[in-house]
Amino acid sequence: MNLSRNDETANTFEIRPGRKRRLLHTDRLMMVVIDFEDGPAAEPDTPHSHPHEQVTYVAEGEVLFFIGTDSRRLFPGDMVAVPPDQPHGIQLMTPYVRLIDTFTPIRQDFL
Amino acid sequence: MNLSRNDETANTFEIRPGRKRRLLHTDRLMMVVIDFEDGPAAEPDTPHSHPHEQVTYVAEGEVLFFIGTDSRRLFPGDMVAVPPDQPHGIQLMTPYVRLIDTFTPIRQDFL
Repeated sequence: MNLSRNDETANTFEIRPGRKRRLLHTDRLMMVVIDFEDGPAAEPDTPHSHPHEQVTYVAEGEVLFFIGTDSRRLFPGDMVAVPPDQPHGIQLMTPYVRLIDTFTPIRQDFL
Repeated sequence: MNLSRNDETANTFEIRPGRKRRLLHTDRLMMVVIDFEDGPAAEPDTPHSHPHEQVTYVAEGEVLFFIGTDSRRLFPGDMVAVPPDQPHGIQLMTPYVRLIDTFTPIRQDFL
């Protein structure tokens, strides 16, 4: 069975100190668990964009989520969809945040 | 911004008493939050299959997850991938379970 345990280190990558991601994917669908331990943040992260469709679930903590000129505060259990090529980003509002990012097609740049 | 709040009732559907789902999607990517309040279960649900690729995240509770003849107990933070057309199913091991199911392409049968 193709699974990824919460505490496993395989396929876990430190993005930078205090931030790491763990991923699992099929041919065209990728799920990425991102743990942020460097919040809260005084300012938003720099927005970014990608051609992949994205839907994100807030598993723990709170973020300000930016898409284009719009921003909303998201809480645990909230979901947000990001269209392809749309600049988006977050600002951490709590010390710890866990986001579940999903993409199609898969993010080859994460492999 | 295309989002779905944890407590919203829009796009929330009662599958049967004690089970409901809430969804958000883009053109080719669907995320479904499923809340099960009818656990634990004495037996597994009947397995099902679909041509969609699926990746599931366990947000709360524990399940036995079945794919074909394989089964594993999944805990919060675990992820599992389901290939297309592979029979799979769950057995609830705790009173409350929340799964985050994601699919590509989108489940037209959920709209």
